[in-house]
Amino acid sequence: MRLLRFLTESPEGLVPRLGALDPSGERVVDLAAAYTRWLQSVGADLQAAKQIAVHLFAENMRDFIALGPWGLEQARAAVEFAAGSPDPPVSYPLDRVRLLAPVQPRVLRDCLAFEEHTKNAYARLNLPVPPVWYEMPVYYKGNPLMVVGPDEDVRWPSYSEVMDYELEIAIVIGPGGRDIPAAEAHRHIYGVTILNDFSARDVQAKEMAVGLGPAKGKDFAYGLGPWIVTIDEIPELYNLEMVARVNGEVWSRGNTGTIYWKFDRIIAHISAAEILAPGDVIGSGTVGGGCGLELGRFLRPGDLVELEVSGIGTLRNRVIR
Amino acid sequence: MRLLRFLTESPEGLVPRLGALDPSGERVVDLAAAYTRWLQSVGADLQAAKQIAVHLFAENMRDFIALGPWGLEQARAAVEFAAGSPDPPVSYPLDRVRLLAPVQPRVLRDCLAFEEHTKNAYARLNLPVPPVWYEMPVYYKGNPLMVVGPDEDVRWPSYSEVMDYELEIAIVIGPGGRDIPAAEAHRHIYGVTILNDFSARDVQAKEMAVGLGPAKGKDFAYGLGPWIVTIDEIPELYNLEMVARVNGEVWSRGNTGTIYWKFDRIIAHISAAEILAPGDVIGSGTVGGGCGLELGRFLRPGDLVELEVSGIGTLRNRVIR
Repeated sequence: MRLLRFLTESPEGLVPRLGALDPSGERVVDLAAAYTRWLQSVGADLQAAKQIAVHLFAENMRDFIALGPWGLEQARAAVEFAAGSPDPPVSYPLDRVRLLAPVQPRVLRDCLAFEEHTKNAYARLNLPVPPVWYEMPVYYKGNPLMVVGPDEDVRWPSYSEVMDYELEIAIVIGPGGRDIPAAEAHRHIYGVTILNDFSARDVQAKEMAVGLGPAKGKDFAYGLGPWIVTIDEIPELYNLEMVARVNGEVWSRGNTGTIYWKFDRIIAHISAAEILAPGDVIGSGTVGGGCGLELGRFLRPGDLVELEVSGIGTLRNRVIR
Repeated sequence: MRLLRFLTESPEGLVPRLGALDPSGERVVDLAAAYTRWLQSVGADLQAAKQIAVHLFAENMRDFIALGPWGLEQARAAVEFAAGSPDPPVSYPLDRVRLLAPVQPRVLRDCLAFEEHTKNAYARLNLPVPPVWYEMPVYYKGNPLMVVGPDEDVRWPSYSEVMDYELEIAIVIGPGGRDIPAAEAHRHIYGVTILNDFSARDVQAKEMAVGLGPAKGKDFAYGLGPWIVTIDEIPELYNLEMVARVNGEVWSRGNTGTIYWKFDRIIAHISAAEILAPGDVIGSGTVGGGCGLELGRFLRPGDLVELEVSGIGTLRNRVIR
């Protein structure tokens, strides 16, 4: 299933809705609307059906994810029903829908799991890779309120002159937990999406000298989307082709198979003595060669960055100043 | 007003409620229960009153804070009404109530705003203070899901041997915003509380060598509370006495007046190109001499840490292994 959030009109203006791609990949099913119709088709009263559907598929993807496999079954029923009723408000053509970031995590973490990127990035700073990098899957935490969705413009912060993209995948946590063993970690991966960890390199370099991690260097925008592909539809998580294009020109290519720290070790590390919650997002970190810092070239105002990952889709964001 | 969260019994087990201290400081007013009675006293039907009250004073302090001055007016009406009806479920003796962290922020930031602590801490690492520290009020982001309340035990993470406390105040954001000028920042401070930024120093030191900031070194627990004192009741934010006691022995003393980066500059810095949301918490960082790292002594399992700040109260947490 490809789960997403999108905007639709309402008497209160544009409101976010949960959706899923239909099997053609060309239509967005409004899950609450389709589920309401499906409940009616199995004998529920319209008002009662609507009330259940809007709570089950509320705008908040986190709460839906927290319902686990049962929630997904209901979404499947809705998507199947929509195939026989392919019109608004049950479904819409994908190209006419404004997508949002598929989830607003409570905690957004981003790792540094690819060795090649790590070596390249430290080399640019004239530093060796710190030995601790090989000891634990290090990460930082981003501002989850600054997630931006597909085709949403990224505002270039006024305090920066050096703007970069980062080509990453991200997992979305399903069942929450604490002290999750690596051998059990796969049960906690709900799905996969694409992350563009936009970076104001000049500020980031200053901040990292202090040791508290990036803040203003990262927290102006995290591109996320275009949707969450549930993990059952990703047969080989560590064999996904990754491409970054800027204004149509390929700048970066990589493969998830080059990852050094896999997500099972990452989940075990993060969840030690700490809560991992449904809907939390964990970025892989940049694939080797997956950012301008490694190439010695940076973004300019107006640039369109497209990150494409096989089996997932394409995340597009324009940087505007 | 001193706003807090506490637990009370319900048919679904213990549930969190919003409360406020009454003027005596010895009773906790259940805001939803007191407001219901007050609405009844001005002519509302019981069921209608209850429905409004439970939404206005839902368990989530963030949403209440987001209501701004109007919300505070309603809380005042509830507290005044409770004075004439000083019994459960309208109010409870403070010493029989189990308090929770007063707010669960969406984003939890912690600064490094005191120069003396910064000098002492870098000296322990045999490093000079990075020049950028004087350029901008640096901070890191904690895991907001790991906030622990007053008198709640802190679980010592199994991966650490060196446990420390940090004596800090924290502000709670009222109206949200982006690009807030320093001159306007005071309008965004809703209230003040106490933060104990517990630190696993061995892991923190390793993590800071990578440059991504602390993660496992901090994210096992953030002591917060005991309540939020609204800013109108803090006449001199930069003249508050701060004391840390371990098992009753004074380990640290400080005063908020020694802060280098005041909160107006901090708010302006954080909110540049970034959303600051109602209920967000910003810690000051440790006051000079306000942690064991600076004293060369650390916590042991079973230690009771009390942080007391004049005009706010005392935050107590025991560290258990």
